[in-house]
Amino acid sequence: MNNKMLAEGLGTGFLLIAVVGSGIMGETLASGNVAVALLANSIATGCALYFLITILGPISGAHFNPAVSFAFWLRGELSSKDAALYIPTQIIGGVLGVWLTHLMFDLSVFQTSSTGRGTSALWIAEIVATFGLVFVILGGLRHRAEAVPMLVALYITGAYWFTASTSFANPAVTIARSFTDTFAGIFPAHAPMFIVCQLVGAALCVWIARALFR
Amino acid sequence: MNNKMLAEGLGTGFLLIAVVGSGIMGETLASGNVAVALLANSIATGCALYFLITILGPISGAHFNPAVSFAFWLRGELSSKDAALYIPTQIIGGVLGVWLTHLMFDLSVFQTSSTGRGTSALWIAEIVATFGLVFVILGGLRHRAEAVPMLVALYITGAYWFTASTSFANPAVTIARSFTDTFAGIFPAHAPMFIVCQLVGAALCVWIARALFR
Amino acid sequence: MNNKMLAEGLGTGFLLIAVVGSGIMGETLASGNVAVALLANSIATGCALYFLITILGPISGAHFNPAVSFAFWLRGELSSKDAALYIPTQIIGGVLGVWLTHLMFDLSVFQTSSTGRGTSALWIAEIVATFGLVFVILGGLRHRAEAVPMLVALYITGAYWFTASTSFANPAVTIARSFTDTFAGIFPAHAPMFIVCQLVGAALCVWIARALFR
Amino acid sequence: MNNKMLAEGLGTGFLLIAVVGSGIMGETLASGNVAVALLANSIATGCALYFLITILGPISGAHFNPAVSFAFWLRGELSSKDAALYIPTQIIGGVLGVWLTHLMFDLSVFQTSSTGRGTSALWIAEIVATFGLVFVILGGLRHRAEAVPMLVALYITGAYWFTASTSFANPAVTIARSFTDTFAGIFPAHAPMFIVCQLVGAALCVWIARALFR
Repeated sequence: MNNKMLAEGLGTGFLLIAVVGSGIMGETLASGNVAVALLANSIATGCALYFLITILGPISGAHFNPAVSFAFWLRGELSSKDAALYIPTQIIGGVLGVWLTHLMFDLSVFQTSSTGRGTSALWIAEIVATFGLVFVILGGLRHRAEAVPMLVALYITGAYWFTASTSFANPAVTIARSFTDTFAGIFPAHAPMFIVCQLVGAALCVWIARALFR
Repeated sequence: MNNKMLAEGLGTGFLLIAVVGSGIMGETLASGNVAVALLANSIATGCALYFLITILGPISGAHFNPAVSFAFWLRGELSSKDAALYIPTQIIGGVLGVWLTHLMFDLSVFQTSSTGRGTSALWIAEIVATFGLVFVILGGLRHRAEAVPMLVALYITGAYWFTASTSFANPAVTIARSFTDTFAGIFPAHAPMFIVCQLVGAALCVWIARALFR
Repeated sequence: MNNKMLAEGLGTGFLLIAVVGSGIMGETLASGNVAVALLANSIATGCALYFLITILGPISGAHFNPAVSFAFWLRGELSSKDAALYIPTQIIGGVLGVWLTHLMFDLSVFQTSSTGRGTSALWIAEIVATFGLVFVILGGLRHRAEAVPMLVALYITGAYWFTASTSFANPAVTIARSFTDTFAGIFPAHAPMFIVCQLVGAALCVWIARALFR
Repeated sequence: MNNKMLAEGLGTGFLLIAVVGSGIMGETLASGNVAVALLANSIATGCALYFLITILGPISGAHFNPAVSFAFWLRGELSSKDAALYIPTQIIGGVLGVWLTHLMFDLSVFQTSSTGRGTSALWIAEIVATFGLVFVILGGLRHRAEAVPMLVALYITGAYWFTASTSFANPAVTIARSFTDTFAGIFPAHAPMFIVCQLVGAALCVWIARALFR
């Protein structure tokens, strides 16, 4: 179990470095063209997901995401005890990743975000985004397991653009991003509703996938 | 048959979310640099095609496109009855995808496009675009079937740029895009000629592929 | 032999559509930010090389390039007779591709370029660019043949940026690009020296590869 | 041993052409939007790593990087004698690559950089960057060796954005980049501390990987 926890913590930490770090770098350099910043942000995040899932997947499954762990738990493929260890590890890893990113970019370590993301349109987007993420994972595992790292990477790179919320789709990421007042941040009070929508999207997908990916 | 229809509907719906959603996001953020918006649009669409074809291909063949179903029907690889079920499912899925995208981006759900795309140069482009798409699918199936998701993804990402019409190449996508007055839209009266050209391109390719990919 | 010729002609034609078409589209939309135009140009060309080599490689070897045919001829892997058929087919296919692109973009079909590319720095760049291209092909065939389409695609996408000439690396492409007065054009009088440098680079690589990829 | 040295020298030289050349091209064309220049720079570097590691990996292991050779030496997988041959070859190859790039771009061949990169935040970034690079290599070799070229390519493309230093992560690259006063340069006096941090990151990763990738 120790290596599984290490993989989930390290992986989620690295994922947050990728999300928050590339957001800071992109916004700093893009001279106000936010689309260029988001392009960098989405490509860098996809890159990180590809290498993290490839090298850590064989150890822990490479969830890095409580909504994904929740989906596997609903399917009876993750025990309650393991889920109870995975989820806090992911959250702690993610927050430590954000703090390390602040150190690297010479920003004050402890921050909270002031970026509001609290409209009902964004809630629909998070349901769609997490539905799609779990859909891609379950479909990939069913039909071409060795492609899952690339599937998740390209799913998220695309979903940054085609969901209105830029696709958080991950409660650990959502919590960790509330601790940074940079490009990728989310106002802490708006995080809980994102997480609720993510769990709804994941559950919805487990239900549909039961029929589709028998 | 139920799962095939579900796969075609869900897949085409998701494809339209990718096309229309990333178009809206790109245009909103690109500060008037349309090339950056189209870059995001083309990359996000390629990402979506990769994961949709990978996970749904084993179920329905992952056409998501009446021109592709038409090509397989011409080749005798799709029965008339199945074609008659696939095509309306693709169209309905696509339109529902556009409407869901409008919900996510907080836009009025029911729209029609005012973007004119009615020149003869664009008609040639749609013939080339659909010829190329079917060419890549038939050549891929003949020579390296497991690469088809990546082939179609990169074909479309490229074709956004090298065909003057940004490569609709899909009657269901064309109809669905007439229902959005955003970046990806097409004025409804200009849709039928696009569809005619797409079917011409597909038929032309079936004819050449018969000799080339024996 | 008929299908080989068809594959070389069609493939080189499509390659030129990708190169010239994405150049026109990129420049038109990029509001003067040439780097964004070149990004689109380089990505679209890479996409095209990936799908063209994957689906046509098993038929003709997917040279699409007299410098590549020349390298295989030097290595005794292409007969003089086949080389004499391949090379003119590539050139004719490329020119037809440029003309079709002009039709698609509603430009006058017959043009000659006025873009000067005649400095000695660019000649060094073309030697490096073609050396690299042949290096990647011979190394790929030696060590991982199924990766050649991706190797060539990513080589050219990168080489657009890291060679000062944006990596023509192909005599058929050079000739065809002298027939377009758009983003990708080259002043006809500057084409011969580019071609000489490309053949030098190819020959140099055949010589080094003999030792390295035994 | 001769071919191994040739592969390490040629590979590192080509890598520097990619890094420095695409930096020059990007900055020249980007009209002051540095994010677009860095996007080109990061994509071109990733492309180069993919093809270089694929075709030269089977010959020399494709380190192109003294920090990677150091990590393999620490693990007892590279002899002291081989390390003593690899490392100077990488450095010489890299410097020659920079000089050839200057020739291609019509710049004076011999330069030293004036770009300061001397803050402690960047030192942390280099530790993280090199830790991650070695992590990806060791994890890839352990779990999916054939994916190492893509893993390293996407790691570096991403790490340009998510580490504050744009991820040099390579002492040979650091030394070579001190010889160019262009986009990718580093003031020579700031190179030694970068190299120290890179070796620290590599050693740290070897230690953690011992437990994680048994």
